[in-house]
Amino acid sequence: MKKLLFNPSQLLTLDTHSKNVKRGTGLSEIDLLHDHSIVINNNFIADIIPNSSVNKNKFDRIIDVTGKTVLPGLVECHTHSVFTGSRADEFRQKLAGVDYEKIAESGGGINSTVRSVRQSSFEDIIKTVKPRIENFISQGITSLEIKSGYGLDFENEIKLLQVINYLNEIYPIDIIPTFLGAHTFPPEHKTTRDEYIDEIINKMLPHIAEQKLAKFCDGFCEATAFTADEIDLIFIRAEELGLNLKLHTEQFNSIGGLNTALKHNAVSVDHLEVLQDDGIIKLGKADTVSVLLPGVSFFLKYQYAPARKLIESNAIIALATDFNPGSSHISSLSLIMSLAALNMRMTIEETINAVSINAAAALKMNDKIGSIEIGKRADFSIFDTEEYANIVYDIGRNLNCMTIKNGEIIYNSAPSVT
Amino acid sequence: MKKLLFNPSQLLTLDTHSKNVKRGTGLSEIDLLHDHSIVINNNFIADIIPNSSVNKNKFDRIIDVTGKTVLPGLVECHTHSVFTGSRADEFRQKLAGVDYEKIAESGGGINSTVRSVRQSSFEDIIKTVKPRIENFISQGITSLEIKSGYGLDFENEIKLLQVINYLNEIYPIDIIPTFLGAHTFPPEHKTTRDEYIDEIINKMLPHIAEQKLAKFCDGFCEATAFTADEIDLIFIRAEELGLNLKLHTEQFNSIGGLNTALKHNAVSVDHLEVLQDDGIIKLGKADTVSVLLPGVSFFLKYQYAPARKLIESNAIIALATDFNPGSSHISSLSLIMSLAALNMRMTIEETINAVSINAAAALKMNDKIGSIEIGKRADFSIFDTEEYANIVYDIGRNLNCMTIKNGEIIYNSAPSVT
Repeated sequence: MKKLLFNPSQLLTLDTHSKNVKRGTGLSEIDLLHDHSIVINNNFIADIIPNSSVNKNKFDRIIDVTGKTVLPGLVECHTHSVFTGSRADEFRQKLAGVDYEKIAESGGGINSTVRSVRQSSFEDIIKTVKPRIENFISQGITSLEIKSGYGLDFENEIKLLQVINYLNEIYPIDIIPTFLGAHTFPPEHKTTRDEYIDEIINKMLPHIAEQKLAKFCDGFCEATAFTADEIDLIFIRAEELGLNLKLHTEQFNSIGGLNTALKHNAVSVDHLEVLQDDGIIKLGKADTVSVLLPGVSFFLKYQYAPARKLIESNAIIALATDFNPGSSHISSLSLIMSLAALNMRMTIEETINAVSINAAAALKMNDKIGSIEIGKRADFSIFDTEEYANIVYDIGRNLNCMTIKNGEIIYNSAPSVT
Repeated sequence: MKKLLFNPSQLLTLDTHSKNVKRGTGLSEIDLLHDHSIVINNNFIADIIPNSSVNKNKFDRIIDVTGKTVLPGLVECHTHSVFTGSRADEFRQKLAGVDYEKIAESGGGINSTVRSVRQSSFEDIIKTVKPRIENFISQGITSLEIKSGYGLDFENEIKLLQVINYLNEIYPIDIIPTFLGAHTFPPEHKTTRDEYIDEIINKMLPHIAEQKLAKFCDGFCEATAFTADEIDLIFIRAEELGLNLKLHTEQFNSIGGLNTALKHNAVSVDHLEVLQDDGIIKLGKADTVSVLLPGVSFFLKYQYAPARKLIESNAIIALATDFNPGSSHISSLSLIMSLAALNMRMTIEETINAVSINAAAALKMNDKIGSIEIGKRADFSIFDTEEYANIVYDIGRNLNCMTIKNGEIIYNSAPSVT
């Protein structure tokens, strides 16, 4: 099956760097083509050709994208999309100024989500989560990372990973599972931390590796969660078992997480709101991706990660929604790009690279996706605009009108105003 | 034609106050019904009845909204949606730290929009604006105010008002035209202000009144635009001609606009970011609606209007996007509600009243729309959620799945992920 993605107004290939990642000032290069079309051969990008050399008869199907802007399929590299229960009431309390500690004491916070997830069946969770996946697809997202981390015991962490793997089977996009057993300590292990870490290391991780339930092992290194030494123990075991590593770190406190992550060559370090200057220098030299989550700062009215300093130091930056019920109930990746532009002073081009090629690097998939290059997967996000700047400038509106995954149209916004 | 809007999970009538407006603490009353359905008779709300007394055979059509939340059709009471030309590049310059004055000097700012509008034909403008109207409709907005103000001469201000009136004809929602000739001084009148004011008073306003091209006369009282005395002259004439009044005021400088607006019993005063305490007290006693525009503060990284102080002083508050190319390129009303909640500390209930009954009051239409009451228009916004808090909590996502205007379904989000 040979298809032609014909005549976009702007075609952003994002393919400048042969290492398939953009760092420092390279993050501003968007590699813009006009008057070109894309040849799709089955699942892959076969060629990028000038319109003048197009022979339409050679194709089984022409997808006319005149007047539209074509980007690589977007990559959402950090979400907690699989949860049940509503924390809207907690949001209401927060708006009313109720203290976070008080909300937690009265049974709110992450514990309420853990309770709900533990009580929910596999089927109930699937039913709750499906509209969220479809919402991501409607935005042009073709690769989506989802973490466990609301089960916090063997049975329920495995259940969540099974849900994520099942979602990957039933949806045409790539859904990448991350094991986040080390999200926080469950209520039953607040005073028996060693026991929970033992459960992660000797029960959960071996089973997950054996059953291939996760690509990544993640953790939360924070004063209220895991120490750097505890993360170190978990990472040693995860590495032995062949899992890739990610770490939530430097969000509220800098307690050694960054060094532990770098010691293990983690694929990404995520958050970094309180990252110090020495950390910025280290990330400028590392291949570890800095995943920034400005939605959290917006949602919690908290400081933003030092994006410009990271760029100046030559770091690799990705952006993600961190979609979750407590600290970033924001599912719009373009809104995250706008927040990064307005509140972290990233340029439009930097935000685009940060949700495509660099987000792919944060999932260790940048050899296959994240840019429009011959041999890569035919994943595209088609925006209903003649200029890509509008993706960031047109705030609060989903301009994606077509999502293509592995050469197939999987979302097409029909005219719906009657 | 008798229809039944059957069995919503939550039905928010917002009908507590017989005066059809909510002020002060009343702004928190959302008047929630469960297990009730709405009887629609032609264009109007005929009854609100308990589900237990529903006889489905009595209706020509049942619209089943089980599991969904029903609100009055949303009212967007302050937009500049009719413009042409892109200012995305200017947004890029702003992000890069280029000074606003410099952008204006190099031909940017409002003057670039005015140039573009003057060069655009009636048909070109319509073509550009249609997707914006449809975007508002898809959000559940059934009444939409649009201002002129980018023509700034007789021919082009009239052209814009004709566009707005034409849009009102071709779309099923109510589109309310506001004349904003006093938006700023056009380039050709920077040193001949009196001549431009004379043109407004003696040429534009009489023609607009005679042709019934606008419901409201609006102005911008600001150091860089019109003085309070200039606005006074314009308002005197507009009132004589039977137009209702609105005023952009207290945005960057407090130069007397509020007093002029109150002297003329303006229907609304809009912006109010630098509103002083004496103004807050005055608005607490007035019937003039305070239209707050938090998207501007977000977009410009500027201070927010004192919403809580206004509520405490018993003022009538409405919220709107202020959608425009320069200072709030934000078209999502639910994002505005989230901004109001997060950054102006309005409660979820206050934001809902501010985009329905109070926004209707800001358009002097609160006797007909803005709440779900017998005799009012059958305008509804149906949200795909069981609890209304999600409209504000689920940030960056359009939860509206059906828009009903005058009893007709005018938007219905079909499942589009294939």
